[in-house]
Amino acid sequence: MINSGCSTGSLLSSIISSHRHLAVCPVPTVLLLFPSSRALTMVNENQHTCSASSSSKSDGGSSSGSESSKDSSRCSTPVLDAERHERLREKMRRRQDSGDRWFSLEFFPPRTANAAVNLISRFDRMAAGGPLFIDVTWHPAGDPGSDKETSSMIIANTAVNYCGLETILHMTCCNQTKDDITGHLQKAKRLGLKNIMALRGDPVGEEWEEEVHGFNHAVDLVKHIRSEFDDYFDICVAGYPKGHPEAESYEADLKYLKEKVLAGADFIITQLFFRSETFLKFMRDCQAIGITCPIIPGIFPIQGYHSLRQLVKLSKLEVPQEIKDVIEPIKDNDAAIRNYGVELAVSMCRELLDSGLVHGLHFYTLNREVATTEVLKRLGIWNEDPRRPLPWAVSAHPKRRVEDVRPIFWASRPKSYIYRTQEWDDFPNGRWGNSSSPAFGELKDYYLFYLKSKSPREELLKMWGEELTGEESVFEVFTCYITGEPNKNGHRVTCMPWNDDPLATETSLLKEQLEKVNRRGILTINSQPNINGKPSTDPIFGWGPSGGYVFQKAYLEFFASSEIVTALLKVLKKYELRVNYHIVNVKGQNITNAPDLQPNAVTWGIFPGREIIQPTVVDPVSFLSWKDEAFALWIEQWAKLYEEESPSRMIIQYIHDNYYLVNLVDNDFPLENCLWQVVDDTFELLNSPPQQ
Amino acid sequence: MINSGCSTGSLLSSIISSHRHLAVCPVPTVLLLFPSSRALTMVNENQHTCSASSSSKSDGGSSSGSESSKDSSRCSTPVLDAERHERLREKMRRRQDSGDRWFSLEFFPPRTANAAVNLISRFDRMAAGGPLFIDVTWHPAGDPGSDKETSSMIIANTAVNYCGLETILHMTCCNQTKDDITGHLQKAKRLGLKNIMALRGDPVGEEWEEEVHGFNHAVDLVKHIRSEFDDYFDICVAGYPKGHPEAESYEADLKYLKEKVLAGADFIITQLFFRSETFLKFMRDCQAIGITCPIIPGIFPIQGYHSLRQLVKLSKLEVPQEIKDVIEPIKDNDAAIRNYGVELAVSMCRELLDSGLVHGLHFYTLNREVATTEVLKRLGIWNEDPRRPLPWAVSAHPKRRVEDVRPIFWASRPKSYIYRTQEWDDFPNGRWGNSSSPAFGELKDYYLFYLKSKSPREELLKMWGEELTGEESVFEVFTCYITGEPNKNGHRVTCMPWNDDPLATETSLLKEQLEKVNRRGILTINSQPNINGKPSTDPIFGWGPSGGYVFQKAYLEFFASSEIVTALLKVLKKYELRVNYHIVNVKGQNITNAPDLQPNAVTWGIFPGREIIQPTVVDPVSFLSWKDEAFALWIEQWAKLYEEESPSRMIIQYIHDNYYLVNLVDNDFPLENCLWQVVDDTFELLNSPPQQ
Repeated sequence: MINSGCSTGSLLSSIISSHRHLAVCPVPTVLLLFPSSRALTMVNENQHTCSASSSSKSDGGSSSGSESSKDSSRCSTPVLDAERHERLREKMRRRQDSGDRWFSLEFFPPRTANAAVNLISRFDRMAAGGPLFIDVTWHPAGDPGSDKETSSMIIANTAVNYCGLETILHMTCCNQTKDDITGHLQKAKRLGLKNIMALRGDPVGEEWEEEVHGFNHAVDLVKHIRSEFDDYFDICVAGYPKGHPEAESYEADLKYLKEKVLAGADFIITQLFFRSETFLKFMRDCQAIGITCPIIPGIFPIQGYHSLRQLVKLSKLEVPQEIKDVIEPIKDNDAAIRNYGVELAVSMCRELLDSGLVHGLHFYTLNREVATTEVLKRLGIWNEDPRRPLPWAVSAHPKRRVEDVRPIFWASRPKSYIYRTQEWDDFPNGRWGNSSSPAFGELKDYYLFYLKSKSPREELLKMWGEELTGEESVFEVFTCYITGEPNKNGHRVTCMPWNDDPLATETSLLKEQLEKVNRRGILTINSQPNINGKPSTDPIFGWGPSGGYVFQKAYLEFFASSEIVTALLKVLKKYELRVNYHIVNVKGQNITNAPDLQPNAVTWGIFPGREIIQPTVVDPVSFLSWKDEAFALWIEQWAKLYEEESPSRMIIQYIHDNYYLVNLVDNDFPLENCLWQVVDDTFELLNSPPQQ
Repeated sequence: MINSGCSTGSLLSSIISSHRHLAVCPVPTVLLLFPSSRALTMVNENQHTCSASSSSKSDGGSSSGSESSKDSSRCSTPVLDAERHERLREKMRRRQDSGDRWFSLEFFPPRTANAAVNLISRFDRMAAGGPLFIDVTWHPAGDPGSDKETSSMIIANTAVNYCGLETILHMTCCNQTKDDITGHLQKAKRLGLKNIMALRGDPVGEEWEEEVHGFNHAVDLVKHIRSEFDDYFDICVAGYPKGHPEAESYEADLKYLKEKVLAGADFIITQLFFRSETFLKFMRDCQAIGITCPIIPGIFPIQGYHSLRQLVKLSKLEVPQEIKDVIEPIKDNDAAIRNYGVELAVSMCRELLDSGLVHGLHFYTLNREVATTEVLKRLGIWNEDPRRPLPWAVSAHPKRRVEDVRPIFWASRPKSYIYRTQEWDDFPNGRWGNSSSPAFGELKDYYLFYLKSKSPREELLKMWGEELTGEESVFEVFTCYITGEPNKNGHRVTCMPWNDDPLATETSLLKEQLEKVNRRGILTINSQPNINGKPSTDPIFGWGPSGGYVFQKAYLEFFASSEIVTALLKVLKKYELRVNYHIVNVKGQNITNAPDLQPNAVTWGIFPGREIIQPTVVDPVSFLSWKDEAFALWIEQWAKLYEEESPSRMIIQYIHDNYYLVNLVDNDFPLENCLWQVVDDTFELLNSPPQQ
């Protein structure tokens, strides 16, 4: 059965959220680079469901250009990763010049909001292997340019902005008006997308006649993009190593490919093929007629018998006899076929790379991880130890490429930070310290989009307590999250309102102390140890280019009762010069010893031949924006799990209303972290008999 | 005899240069805050000479505002020193609020170019004690607004821009047209001066009649400044603790003082006095009639019998009998009088400070150091261990207050750097790395102004050799400069073309290695050791606020022959990832392994509650501007000491034409500096037999 994603709801009702009514709706899926054919392809063997479809208008094209024109007057971002500032075609050129081999990954838009959430997690995981780019296919029948969380546009938007992936958005042109197409392109530009795969797409219905002034071929789309958007987009086009099945001849198809390149395409990705000779001949033939741009082979690791058969039928490709001979006998053994597919892909890729003509490989993933990852690992081009350019994931939005410093507060909620700063023109906006209003996005929008947990209510209740009996039961939840031990009902606490993921490796190192303090009501939500010059290649703390050193000041952020805070403030007097603190309650009453509202750098790195990088700061101004979010999470994620007026809800409401949010920085990074001592002293003071 | 400075020549013919024809010219000197009297004051007992005077037009007032309006869009300079961004009246207020006591120093313009050179050295030395400001008196008869190196305007300009001192320029108004005064003020603003001491000045000739619409009183000048320049300048006015001698009465003079304050004066500095009660009564009387601005007592440490007598005659002040009683018997013993003067000043200052009414003390230095420094040290307000806000002296020009990073190359020539970057609007200009032309001031201007040595030709020849016999005799000069040992003719080499001062303390620590390499033809002109986190209070390496840590990468810069450079390049291959290098000859042929022309931070600091500061970089782009200067110094300062065509001159010319300028950075700052090993390896390679 062939299904496709089409679901109700706007962007704001969320990629992340997951509860919705599901219905089966039969809409064809566009996938890979298929020749036009009436029945579109379906190679994913699992069945999919999708929510009831609704009409959704494509966003009009108000042109708020996303290119920053301020680069020259601003301080430059120290270039840690040269590629970060380059466009895709320049990255390819650089890799070709340096001889570094690379890979890219193709995905199709998911059919349901649930599947979208899973796909985004997959983006994050596969980003770790270091793809040069990913691409997202275009579903003409699935409202691909809409604001639905499953549309091609929104999936590509999520990849580039929130997952930090260089992204190509496919776009087809047949049966569309010029205005529609321009609208899609304007929207893509507005969202920060820089690369388009220009395709003809498949005509609808049995009969298809060329329109005289319409878009009848991919080359028309290429010309349109160049004429309307000049050089803004990098353009990719499709190549067919065996010739397009509708083409008069292989030679005629090659000529057509050259036309697309002459019209302005920057590089070519090919349809899949089964033998390296097929591609290498194609490449030589292209070069012979003067096509000089990069040509990237499309690799399809065979993942199952049925998907292969379907594929062959739709793509009109012929599977070589030697492959059929192996597969037929094992057609019911999925694992065996996949193993064989991996073998086959690895050996074909090796031949391609060994030819010296191929620098990059493009993988048709079918939205799955295992086979592609396995091939890449076997080839040695999966990046086992990815160098993080900065300690946080860099957004791939062109406007954000100068971004080199963020407040530490959103460390566990980077997508929220990106969302709330999407209207900024500079990163940071005007420089926090100089600006009384850093203009973070309003929390009321934000509620709608990101405040929701990935987990369903029932799971959250199991983790955070069906019924709370007092503040101590809240302490217990925090403690279980830290220790990883099951709670008294036997459930592990794998997420918290402030942390949608399990504890970071770095934080795990502080586990023992964290457990101790959470048990006593210091409810920690963010922390980092001090680091005095670890190599930038350190597997846990390292980031940036090799040969450098990274540093951190110890940081601790927590909620605590006013009783604890009163004692803490007395203790902090002893540490006045060493420890900076900010203490604020939900009403915004704020106590700090930070000098002149300046940011305090808490993560920095020193690298060969470069300026100092300080990617993380504790910033007093943005802390007040974070405070709103941090307190709101108590209510939005936790209190609302319970009935109104219920004791459980009132306990969380009490904490929200009365606790303080505290952050502490130990400035003396070369010495042993004193923050645990500060906390111990505080408890000691609380336990000591009142003095006269 | 009464003399005053008036000398030929423009700014460009130099404060620093020292050779000129001298002639005695009898022009009165304005000094201190004297009541108007026909014959102006002279309290400096030494005789002075001055060069023949010449006419010199005051600079017209094209208004290139010196206030930066870009602060909000640029990255902020991390505020290391809060006072750096404040105007003088705010600094005073801050000191008053914090209870920190301060002092300021008054100087008069020197009479000769030689004296100007000495005065600037004195500024640099006295700046070390941490004055809140200095002020420079105005010589109406000495062409005070001109571009002469001895004019009030140019001395104040030098103090604020090149010595980094907050500076008040005196200005008098009587007998001047409105246009003249406006022109002076515009020029002062253009030069970066922010503070004016508004005085009436002394009428010329026996008879003096008030002009109806002219400037007859200081209050007229105060009003004029406020009406023409709004709030741009901080304005200081004079107060007379005993009343102005021409005033009708003490009370009338107080009322007049209040008028000056109401007209816009920000604070008051008083005429000198001999008893603390005099000042304290005056202060109370001021307060009683509603004068609330700061009133700063003017302190005059008695430094000699004759200067005191002259002073008394001119100022019409009466010396108390108890002082006369002490002084008369010892009037021929200068040392005894000065000791007494110091005693007296110290005890009076203590009384003033103990009163709780006085926070700052203003010293009439008579352009001398000893007595004032002694008083300040005895009072404990001379800053024995001045905290350097940055490792280089910060310019006090308001435009440059955001400056927080400089290339290391000009470390020994900071005034040259300031001169060559005076046209910049940003510091650095656009960010070197993003700009192919950092637009350093042309070297052809620069030749005229700063390329000259402080020392006369004969001294330089004694140090650098009357006759050179080969490159080795040049090596010998470099080696003697490093070791401090006398050369073969018994003369110590106390300066070099690239270093007008003896070796820095920091460099002395490298003395042994430097001596070894200079002896063999690695002619070092700049270096720093690596530092891995010394406290910011370290007496040698420390800078910035206390509680921080400072770091350095090892740096070495030298000239060397092409033979050495060829071997060096081979050796550097072994250190490719660790050592960054730039190697360039006079023609600009440039070899480097710096990535993407990015600056390499070589000095940085981490401080409590602040962003990272990286004040010194090795910048590939500005290195090419420095290269021109560094090579030019061989010719301008050294070769030109010798006759044209002489062997000595040809040796220097040969080095200039054929040597390379090299800089090396060891990026691995936590390890032992490898640059000495690089140099050793180079010599080893040079000495090894050629391999087949």
